Amino acid sequence: MSLVVVGSVAYDGVATPAGRVDRMLGGACTYISLAASYFTPVSIVAVVGEDFAQEDAGLLASRGIDLEGLQRAPGKTFFWAGVYSEDMNDRETLATELNVFADFRPDLPASCRSKPYLMLGNIQPALQRAVREQMSGARLIGGDTMNFWIEGQREELLQTIAGWDFLLINDSEARLLSGERNLKRAAAAIRAMGPRILVIKRGEYGAALFHDGGAFSLPGYLLDTLKDPTGAGDCFAGGFIGSLAERGVTAETASPADLARAVVYGSVMGSFCCEDFGVGRFRTLTRDDIERRFQEFRRLTAF
Amino acid sequence: MSLVVVGSVAYDGVATPAGRVDRMLGGACTYISLAASYFTPVSIVAVVGEDFAQEDAGLLASRGIDLEGLQRAPGKTFFWAGVYSEDMNDRETLATELNVFADFRPDLPASCRSKPYLMLGNIQPALQRAVREQMSGARLIGGDTMNFWIEGQREELLQTIAGWDFLLINDSEARLLSGERNLKRAAAAIRAMGPRILVIKRGEYGAALFHDGGAFSLPGYLLDTLKDPTGAGDCFAGGFIGSLAERGVTAETASPADLARAVVYGSVMGSFCCEDFGVGRFRTLTRDDIERRFQEFRRLTAF
Repeated sequence: MSLVVVGSVAYDGVATPAGRVDRMLGGACTYISLAASYFTPVSIVAVVGEDFAQEDAGLLASRGIDLEGLQRAPGKTFFWAGVYSEDMNDRETLATELNVFADFRPDLPASCRSKPYLMLGNIQPALQRAVREQMSGARLIGGDTMNFWIEGQREELLQTIAGWDFLLINDSEARLLSGERNLKRAAAAIRAMGPRILVIKRGEYGAALFHDGGAFSLPGYLLDTLKDPTGAGDCFAGGFIGSLAERGVTAETASPADLARAVVYGSVMGSFCCEDFGVGRFRTLTRDDIERRFQEFRRLTAF
Repeated sequence: MSLVVVGSVAYDGVATPAGRVDRMLGGACTYISLAASYFTPVSIVAVVGEDFAQEDAGLLASRGIDLEGLQRAPGKTFFWAGVYSEDMNDRETLATELNVFADFRPDLPASCRSKPYLMLGNIQPALQRAVREQMSGARLIGGDTMNFWIEGQREELLQTIAGWDFLLINDSEARLLSGERNLKRAAAAIRAMGPRILVIKRGEYGAALFHDGGAFSLPGYLLDTLKDPTGAGDCFAGGFIGSLAERGVTAETASPADLARAVVYGSVMGSFCCEDFGVGRFRTLTRDDIERRFQEFRRLTAF
């Protein structure tokens, strides 16, 4: 069933121990929608500048992604550049040029407003809330956030996530948001803020899921090659909600097994993302590859 | 089937964000043997000083641990003190007083030499090798090491582990030993050094197992309360080899399922260890508690 993805479409410059690319397609909305497109029809709501390449729009379209909500504005596309640490678990931001993204006011096309699934990439909490209000009939709604909003717009963020079914967040941000170091206690505190389904992403170490029916924990996939972790968390989000949307799972019907499977699909998509720079891996990735890795996760974790 | 454990019996002083104990029973041999004692008969080979308390020997004896190989020497028992970081993932050593441990020359009682299982706690590689040579008929042999020996006695260590069936090591040490950052490549390099069964411990993030039949990965247990991680890696080792010894699994017969179960039992024992200071948790822990947590791991990871 159809999914709306809202967030940034950007150009990134990335340096990792495995190499360097000065300018390539990136942005949370891009990664989420590419990953989700393997599971379900996706419409994106985002803004790009006059410099946005036809080739990049073409990649999204080639994955069947609906671009009606992709606004084009005068000016340049959002640009981010960063450099990763030796172990790629940390990164330093070298440049953040908001450009046309500074004035992004997501206005959903009429065709999007009645869709059942909504994934809000990491943007200003007030904008996330405004989108959510335009999709009052959606049946599974959630999003991502980051330390910048947790620290700088906490009240706004709390109002926003109060209306979500799920939140995806990394472990350091979960600790920051909850004020709890212990992951179980952090999860309980965050779930009390609204989102009954919580996924705490732990990078190379995997992910933990907390919901009314209990908890689920998955170790990280052991990669043969790690080239660039940029976008892995967003691809996780795309695999997570995409696989739920594919099977028509809603906030009301989601079972522990549905949610655990979604976490595995999220991890599968995040792991593929790291195998090449930027969105490179999605140029060749197939659904068969995804199913093979899902089964590999089963073998890797069964006892 | 009977297990011999060789290593340090010590007194520790530990400060963590959850509290502080100035002097308590510790040491790798202590933790390994206590954890393993829930699964199989254990004999220890270690040395203590004149200050070693009857109460502490009594705790080991109460778990059925054979103390014939526990030498008493003139002087004081090995003492270590350290303070943990806020997240308890790092620690700083404040004191290392080798005392009687400086002259420890493990000499196995005749009753130990024919036992089938041997776990070598983290001591000088040459001593580990000397013990291994006293147990030429053992059917499953392995041990632990640390950065101090990897950096300082590399050749000696390589000769030593070449004769082991399994090696337990943490992730930063696996990288140091192999020179590989990627965990799969690090594992392949280390397995080529001798131990066909390799467990890479990742602290709160779980553990990964590599063997001829493939790989297995387990996330960390989500603790309600973390008081003191001292000894968790050694308790992992005790649960790992103890559960294999209980079922008579040898280097020749070990199946992927046997080894995966052993990693889960290792993780169970490591997780209990962290719930109290020092060996405190083992004063009340029962085999039923262990089985319940094993099943909890199943529920936490099944999909």
